[in-house]
Amino acid sequence: MQRKFILLWLLFFIVVGCSPHYPADTITQASTIDLLLAGQYDGQMTCGQLLGYGDFGIGTFDRLDGEMILIDGSFYQVKADGKVYRPDMALKTPFAAVSHFSNDTDIAFDCGQGLNDTQLRKAIDTYITNPHLFYAIRLTGRFASMHTRSVPSQQKPYPPLSEVTQNQPEFKMTDIAGTIVGFWCPAYTKGINVPGYHLHFISDDFKQGGHILGFEMRDGRAEIDRCHQFALIMPEKGEGIAEVDLSVDRSGELNQVEHLKTSQ
Amino acid sequence: MQRKFILLWLLFFIVVGCSPHYPADTITQASTIDLLLAGQYDGQMTCGQLLGYGDFGIGTFDRLDGEMILIDGSFYQVKADGKVYRPDMALKTPFAAVSHFSNDTDIAFDCGQGLNDTQLRKAIDTYITNPHLFYAIRLTGRFASMHTRSVPSQQKPYPPLSEVTQNQPEFKMTDIAGTIVGFWCPAYTKGINVPGYHLHFISDDFKQGGHILGFEMRDGRAEIDRCHQFALIMPEKGEGIAEVDLSVDRSGELNQVEHLKTSQ
Repeated sequence: MQRKFILLWLLFFIVVGCSPHYPADTITQASTIDLLLAGQYDGQMTCGQLLGYGDFGIGTFDRLDGEMILIDGSFYQVKADGKVYRPDMALKTPFAAVSHFSNDTDIAFDCGQGLNDTQLRKAIDTYITNPHLFYAIRLTGRFASMHTRSVPSQQKPYPPLSEVTQNQPEFKMTDIAGTIVGFWCPAYTKGINVPGYHLHFISDDFKQGGHILGFEMRDGRAEIDRCHQFALIMPEKGEGIAEVDLSVDRSGELNQVEHLKTSQ
Repeated sequence: MQRKFILLWLLFFIVVGCSPHYPADTITQASTIDLLLAGQYDGQMTCGQLLGYGDFGIGTFDRLDGEMILIDGSFYQVKADGKVYRPDMALKTPFAAVSHFSNDTDIAFDCGQGLNDTQLRKAIDTYITNPHLFYAIRLTGRFASMHTRSVPSQQKPYPPLSEVTQNQPEFKMTDIAGTIVGFWCPAYTKGINVPGYHLHFISDDFKQGGHILGFEMRDGRAEIDRCHQFALIMPEKGEGIAEVDLSVDRSGELNQVEHLKTSQ
């Protein structure tokens, strides 16, 4: 009997202690934003593999087929038709960032009434007391308006991301409940991730969402998980990937891609 | 008997499979080079903790007290007096990068006779076929000359690294056998690590070494371990650390610090 207990204890230790590849407070990322900007859309890591590194995150899918939202261990794929799909665990991603979102978050606060996108970012800014760390952001709320975009699946030869987003489908929702999922990354991640905020949205009924362009909240609650560890997993192979020049400053392209296609 | 085997197998799995915090082919780094350039010399992670992430690497020590060489799991501290010390496992580091150097290295080659620093880097360059990955470099050889430097321990308020290295002690060795230990990092690590080569030296008798400024080899063998994963562990706290502006481009300072104090 005693041996059985030891066996069970050891198994528990293996499963619980060793299953996440990286410890808590770690943001794990597949590839870099600059490789994505350069048109490297071939998936490298499966959704199933990504789950080993976190239950929360954002990204895109193989061939740039939509916006990824990972929440509570479930993946959502907001495609260019505006519909939300549940991707197969074998579907790959060319770029994604995930973390184990702690239930015991470091920072939590009720957002004031009627904040817009800029005002909310300013409210969160006050909690980013150490700008060299990473912050996972989850905001559950009701929105008077939510403006998102997605990206259409691409064919080879892949155009750069800034070309794709010139024809991005945009979605305007009104009076909708849902969750904002994303990260705040430090300035030194330039070229690797998006310095500052990068936020996606998924509605509570899982029928609408995308990469956030703007919104107006009714009310909501923000939870912020401070992460001091960052793990980058680079693709080892990929057509033309080694030839991409990553010493180029693509900040201008990134700014164009992350925001509205027309100045507003 | 069978149960005993299962128990032993499970224990083996726990010890071997789970002991490194990060998997193979991962370079794990404590803090960023730009925080070091800005004068953040307070140790953050102990040598003992660092060993959990690798048996091979380079860095510096608490209060900038010398150059770190980690080889085959043993730490060496080349202090400003030119002597090599064995640091206590409780000694902390403000900046270091380590990896598990694979015995089954991806690339190994005998270096030609009489290569100098620049020529050796060019020879290694030909093996860096994917410039988005990281490369751990170990070179065992005999050197007609080896030119290194160390850095003296600092007192608060800490001056920036570029000031410290203006008075760096330099060491010139001749006809010496030893090992070059270091990394080649991609362009996108600018601000985080040293893009390109960052190499330290330790003599075979463990009595001399330091941060390499130049050399002339007699002969040697290079082993290179290609790493596609990079894990950054940032200090969560530290006097004045949150106030350092890491959006500044410190490439000029880095170039000054990494090389000779006088142009040669």
